[in-house]
Amino acid sequence: MTLVLNDDDVAQVLTMKDCIAALEDAFREMGLGGVMNAPRRDSFMLASRPDAYYSFKTMEGGLESLGVVAQRINSDLITHPLIGGVTRRVKVPAAPGKRYVGLVFLYSSETLELLAIITDGHLQRMRVAGSTGVGVKYLARKDSCSAALLGSGWQAETAAWALASVRPITTIKVFSPNPEHRKSFAEKVGADLGIEVIPVEGAQEAVIGADIVATATNSAGAVVKGEWIEKGVHLTSIRVHELDEEAWRRSDLITFSGSGGPGAYFTYATQGFEASHRETERQGERAQLEDERFQRYRGKIHLLCDLLTDKVPQRTTPSQITLMNKNWGLGIEFASVAKLINDRARAAGIGKEIPTEWFSQTSHP
Amino acid sequence: MTLVLNDDDVAQVLTMKDCIAALEDAFREMGLGGVMNAPRRDSFMLASRPDAYYSFKTMEGGLESLGVVAQRINSDLITHPLIGGVTRRVKVPAAPGKRYVGLVFLYSSETLELLAIITDGHLQRMRVAGSTGVGVKYLARKDSCSAALLGSGWQAETAAWALASVRPITTIKVFSPNPEHRKSFAEKVGADLGIEVIPVEGAQEAVIGADIVATATNSAGAVVKGEWIEKGVHLTSIRVHELDEEAWRRSDLITFSGSGGPGAYFTYATQGFEASHRETERQGERAQLEDERFQRYRGKIHLLCDLLTDKVPQRTTPSQITLMNKNWGLGIEFASVAKLINDRARAAGIGKEIPTEWFSQTSHP
Repeated sequence: MTLVLNDDDVAQVLTMKDCIAALEDAFREMGLGGVMNAPRRDSFMLASRPDAYYSFKTMEGGLESLGVVAQRINSDLITHPLIGGVTRRVKVPAAPGKRYVGLVFLYSSETLELLAIITDGHLQRMRVAGSTGVGVKYLARKDSCSAALLGSGWQAETAAWALASVRPITTIKVFSPNPEHRKSFAEKVGADLGIEVIPVEGAQEAVIGADIVATATNSAGAVVKGEWIEKGVHLTSIRVHELDEEAWRRSDLITFSGSGGPGAYFTYATQGFEASHRETERQGERAQLEDERFQRYRGKIHLLCDLLTDKVPQRTTPSQITLMNKNWGLGIEFASVAKLINDRARAAGIGKEIPTEWFSQTSHP
Repeated sequence: MTLVLNDDDVAQVLTMKDCIAALEDAFREMGLGGVMNAPRRDSFMLASRPDAYYSFKTMEGGLESLGVVAQRINSDLITHPLIGGVTRRVKVPAAPGKRYVGLVFLYSSETLELLAIITDGHLQRMRVAGSTGVGVKYLARKDSCSAALLGSGWQAETAAWALASVRPITTIKVFSPNPEHRKSFAEKVGADLGIEVIPVEGAQEAVIGADIVATATNSAGAVVKGEWIEKGVHLTSIRVHELDEEAWRRSDLITFSGSGGPGAYFTYATQGFEASHRETERQGERAQLEDERFQRYRGKIHLLCDLLTDKVPQRTTPSQITLMNKNWGLGIEFASVAKLINDRARAAGIGKEIPTEWFSQTSHP
C-alpha cells in the first residue's frame, strides 16, 4: 500500500526530537559517502495571471542505509508584490480551496515502489528546524540555556522546538517587527514548551545575553549585527543575509548544512520572461552572497556532514563563536524525515492507503 | 479529482495520430519559446543486491498554451549482465509482482494541482515514436510508401504505427537478430496496420529500396551503414550510434529533437561506486558520441522545434537525405502527451480517482 499523508498526519507522528535524530543520521551518512543528493532545481513558466508566474521546484535524495529515495516538488504560483517598500516573494494559494501544492514522494530503493506521498508543509518546517537542531547539538555550548529568536512565523515556531530539544533552554527572547505577532507567538510557544518566551522590542535586545541566536525571518536584509555578538555564542541562520558580514567575520567556526553557492541552483526560463528573470536574479543574489562569503571565509567553513564524521573539529573552547548557515535544502533531509514519518504512520495506522500496484507496471519502460 | 491511469488506460485513450499531433504542437511551442524544459537527470545509489544499483531518473517540462507541467520519474534497479559477449543495461522488475516503476505526474500551472499520475510504460513508447512521427512528417518525402525497421521490440512496434500515421506506407521490411521475434512482429504489426510487414534476414536487405529507415534497437553498435542509403531517404534513429558515421556524413539535413550532448545529463554518484560509475561512463559515451557528431556536422544540424517554426529550412528537394536523431527525452513531450491522455480519460470516464485535496495543503510550504 502507498500511504498518503497530510500535514495533520505528519504533526501527529513526528516529534522534533526524532526528526533531529533522523537528520543527524542522514548527515552522518552523507559524511561517510552513502547518500544520493541531486540539488534543487527550479523551472519557470508564464501563467495566465499577468502579475504572477508558475514555478516548479524539485530535488531528490536517498540514503543507502535506509533504502529510500525522496523527491520533493513544489507546484507554485509566485508574485512579487511591493510590501512596505520592499519587493517580497509571495506564493499564491491558487489550488482549489485556496491551497498550496508541495509534495514529498518517498520511494524504496529495494522494492522501487512508491511508499508514500506526503504534503510538505509541516514536514518542511520540521526538516529545516531539525537541521538547525543538529547544528546546535554539535556547535552550541552544552550549557546553553538562553536563546534569541528573530522571527515569529511558521518557521520560527519549529526553530524554538529544535533549540529546546537539544539544549536545556529556559528562556527565549523573540523579536519580529509586528508587536502582535511576537506577543501571540511568545504565549503559544512558551506554553507549548513550558519555558519562558519573552517578546522584546528590538533585535539587539533579543540577542544581548543569549547563548544561541537563531534567525527564521523573511527579511530582505540583515537582522543580526555581528557587533552585538558575545564570545561563546552559537549563531544559526536559514538565509545567508540574515546575519551581517561582521557576524561571519567574528565567527571562529562556520558550518554549511549543504554545499551552496552558484551551481546548486538551475533555472530554465522562457525567453523574455520578466517575472522569472526577477526570480532568477533574486535567487542568484542569494547564491552570490553565499558564495562571496564562502570564498572570503573558506578557511573556517566546513560541511555539517564532515563535522559529524570527525573529519573537521567541532567547537573546542567555550569562548568560540560558532555559526551554522542552514542553506539550500538537501534531498537527504526529505528522505530521512519522510522515511521516519512513513514508518511511524504505518505503525500507528494513520493516513490514507492506495494500492501500490496503481503506481507500477508490467511493461519495461 | 486526481486521476490515476495505468498502461491499459493509456492504450485505450491514446491514438498514435493524436499523440503525433500533440507532440507537433509542443515542439512548435518550444520553437516559439513558450515552454519549460529541465533536462533529464539521473542519480544513483547502492542497493543491497551486490550486482545491481538503484537509479532515480527525473525530468520536467511544461507548456504555457496548455497550462500544464509534467514530471516523469523512474525508480529503477539496474544490472549490467554480459549477454552474447556484450554488456547490456537491464532493469530488474523488483517492484512487488515483478513490476517496474516509472510514473508521469501531471500538474496544472493554473490551479497548481496534481491532475494525474500515469504509469509511463505505454506512454513512453508512444512519446518516443510520436516524436519520430513528427520528424517523418516534416522531413520524409510526402510520397514515402516503403520503410525499413531495424528492431522488433516494444519500441519498434509504435515506431511502425508512427510511420504509417504520417505517410502512405504500404510495406515495412523488418530486421532484428532473432528470426522468431521478427516473424511474430511482422504478423502482429501487419495485421494491426493492414499493411505488408515483411521479416527479412539482414539489415541491408531491409534498408535497400526503403523510403524511410527507422531504428528502434537495443544494439550496442551501428545497425545501419551509410553506404546502403539511397538518395531521398529519411533516416530516423533513437540512439545516435544506431546509424554509422557515414550515414551522418551523407545526410544533407539533420534534426535533433532536443539539445543533446554532455550537459543534458547530470549524475550524482556515491563515492567509489563502481556500478554507478559504469552507468555514468556508458551514458557519457552516448553523450560524447552525440557531441562529437554534433561538432562535426553542426552546419547541417537543426532542432526540430526550429524546423516547425520555419526558422530553418525543411526538406527542399526529393533527392535530399534527411536524418532525425530522436535523442534525449524532453519534459515537454511528457507534458503534451500526458495532458492529452488526461483529457481523453476524463471525457471517457476512464481511470481511478483520488481527491485532489489529498495532494494539497493550507500551510504555506
